[in-house]
Amino acid sequence: MMVPPSYKKLKRGPQVILPKDIGIIIAYTGIGKRSLCIDAGTGSGWLAVSLGRTAGRVVSYDTRDDFLKIAQKNVEIEQLDNVELKRGDVTKKIDESDADLVTLDLANSDKALRNARKALKDGGYVVGYLPHMEQVKKFVSTLEKLKFINVYTLEIIARDMLVRKEGMRPSTKGVWHTAYLVFGQK
Amino acid sequence: MMVPPSYKKLKRGPQVILPKDIGIIIAYTGIGKRSLCIDAGTGSGWLAVSLGRTAGRVVSYDTRDDFLKIAQKNVEIEQLDNVELKRGDVTKKIDESDADLVTLDLANSDKALRNARKALKDGGYVVGYLPHMEQVKKFVSTLEKLKFINVYTLEIIARDMLVRKEGMRPSTKGVWHTAYLVFGQK
Amino acid sequence: MMVPPSYKKLKRGPQVILPKDIGIIIAYTGIGKRSLCIDAGTGSGWLAVSLGRTAGRVVSYDTRDDFLKIAQKNVEIEQLDNVELKRGDVTKKIDESDADLVTLDLANSDKALRNARKALKDGGYVVGYLPHMEQVKKFVSTLEKLKFINVYTLEIIARDMLVRKEGMRPSTKGVWHTAYLVFGQK
Amino acid sequence: MMVPPSYKKLKRGPQVILPKDIGIIIAYTGIGKRSLCIDAGTGSGWLAVSLGRTAGRVVSYDTRDDFLKIAQKNVEIEQLDNVELKRGDVTKKIDESDADLVTLDLANSDKALRNARKALKDGGYVVGYLPHMEQVKKFVSTLEKLKFINVYTLEIIARDMLVRKEGMRPSTKGVWHTAYLVFGQK
Repeated sequence: MMVPPSYKKLKRGPQVILPKDIGIIIAYTGIGKRSLCIDAGTGSGWLAVSLGRTAGRVVSYDTRDDFLKIAQKNVEIEQLDNVELKRGDVTKKIDESDADLVTLDLANSDKALRNARKALKDGGYVVGYLPHMEQVKKFVSTLEKLKFINVYTLEIIARDMLVRKEGMRPSTKGVWHTAYLVFGQK
Repeated sequence: MMVPPSYKKLKRGPQVILPKDIGIIIAYTGIGKRSLCIDAGTGSGWLAVSLGRTAGRVVSYDTRDDFLKIAQKNVEIEQLDNVELKRGDVTKKIDESDADLVTLDLANSDKALRNARKALKDGGYVVGYLPHMEQVKKFVSTLEKLKFINVYTLEIIARDMLVRKEGMRPSTKGVWHTAYLVFGQK
Repeated sequence: MMVPPSYKKLKRGPQVILPKDIGIIIAYTGIGKRSLCIDAGTGSGWLAVSLGRTAGRVVSYDTRDDFLKIAQKNVEIEQLDNVELKRGDVTKKIDESDADLVTLDLANSDKALRNARKALKDGGYVVGYLPHMEQVKKFVSTLEKLKFINVYTLEIIARDMLVRKEGMRPSTKGVWHTAYLVFGQK
Repeated sequence: MMVPPSYKKLKRGPQVILPKDIGIIIAYTGIGKRSLCIDAGTGSGWLAVSLGRTAGRVVSYDTRDDFLKIAQKNVEIEQLDNVELKRGDVTKKIDESDADLVTLDLANSDKALRNARKALKDGGYVVGYLPHMEQVKKFVSTLEKLKFINVYTLEIIARDMLVRKEGMRPSTKGVWHTAYLVFGQK
């Protein structure tokens, strides 16, 4: 999959959320300049940084210092002053409230949904980034138990096209799957 | 395809650019709170409004007053004060300069590329939204003639997943194609 | 999805297995003129009839007389004398042995795998047609318990293309999902 | 993409037509034990051999002796006595008539359509295997000029699924595109 130039300058440590999924999270939740976004785990911080470009304020949590260091570099590369990186475990505690968006990319994201709900304002969104179908099922079922509304699940496929002298066609090989995105609204 | 709640309140006149494509445009071009975006044609204004949420300023052109009226409604629904709707034909003239992004969704978008290039700052992006492969070929070839760099073409497929008591699976039917997205950088 | 002319003449009662999946079953298992195929449930008999065209002999089981009647019509329309339709439940018993292929499209296809294994010759294939991921998991896990080899799962997407005066592009809407196909070899 | 065991034993010289496309050609054209199939170019002979398994008789043309040699090996591996390999150029001449199917995988397949039409019986199919969109357009337009009916174009995507202890999901990477298939009926 083609990585857009706006991401090529960023550092890439642990597995990153790719621009194709980042774009959908931003567009589908309608976040903007006035929005507060909570993000966990930070990982390389690609999502945190992208949210930072478009949202009012971003707080991103990770339990690992080495990841937070990479993310900090990326915040600096993007010259953002509205992204705060925090060492912490959102399944235990989220300090903020009245958030417009909580994004979860953890091994056990469903365990963070109760805290996510508390941190969200009414109408705010939670989004799970979940590679496996079993995780999706557990996440959706927890969303329903916690009375989230407008729950939906999708998968974004970005298909590169080759446009060349010899002809136009989809690229032969490509990235088929990163993760499912599950949305829920408080 | 599921339309996210953040778009359901918007009016829908002429064919709209859907959130799946809007998100990719925002993420791949990395626009943010300091960016100036030019958009044409406005259509129902879904893209203009979405850019308005995340960018510094948006100027959107259309030649049809009836479309501009619908878009104006949507700007009001979203309570945006940074989106300017203009009657005008970007294949003739773009008033602005130093833009970070020019998005083109016209029957003859390739005819607007020369003006788009003039309006862009160095490093700025143009994005074409092009339903047919013949349009893509013409657009890409014009981008190359005009010395745009990092030209690439992709197609975004949003696949809805059903997660229900009876089991999890992709939805039976769905939207397969809206348009190809072609990116170029000045 | 476009239904090929060779299928348009067939009757369509209960949900049918579509040509896109039928073709993959035939090609991936390599069945041919000398092969014995067992099929259950018959349904409208589209798969049984298609196997009948290419294989030596086909025996297709269903528990419902009304389905077998529709399938019988289709066998007659195709003028096949090598397709036998049987009332019976393959989770209880399969009369045949030394089969090259057993295809299973039942609500509880995994329950038929023990009998399928007995009916197959060494190197023969079983194929499950399974709409939901939960069924796939159970089917795969049973295949592994029963020591089937070369187990693999795939999904076939047939994407219609429009080639018209106004341009070429994928069709706007289409069939996204019918079922997963799971293959195992004895 | 997973290659099914039934193809793993075959030799692979020049680019082959993969089982996913072979299966669709067989199923969509409804060929069977009584059918005569013409195939060009032979290439490694995977399609010729697959047609040989299911059809009455297959004649496969190629202009290159080295390809015909590889294909001959594959005919022997499959122990088929109904597949004839011929050195020849189908854009110049097809010896056979009353064929049920003509498959074309040439750089200039559209040039062979006039001869294909002559070789076909009424109701018989021609299928083009065409990697690029420009080839599809030319092929479809020639089919229409030559009064073929039921012309349609599709693309087959075989998506591998991983079903493992850690969870079920589509494979990360895969084959996105081989070629478009264009069908026409005399």
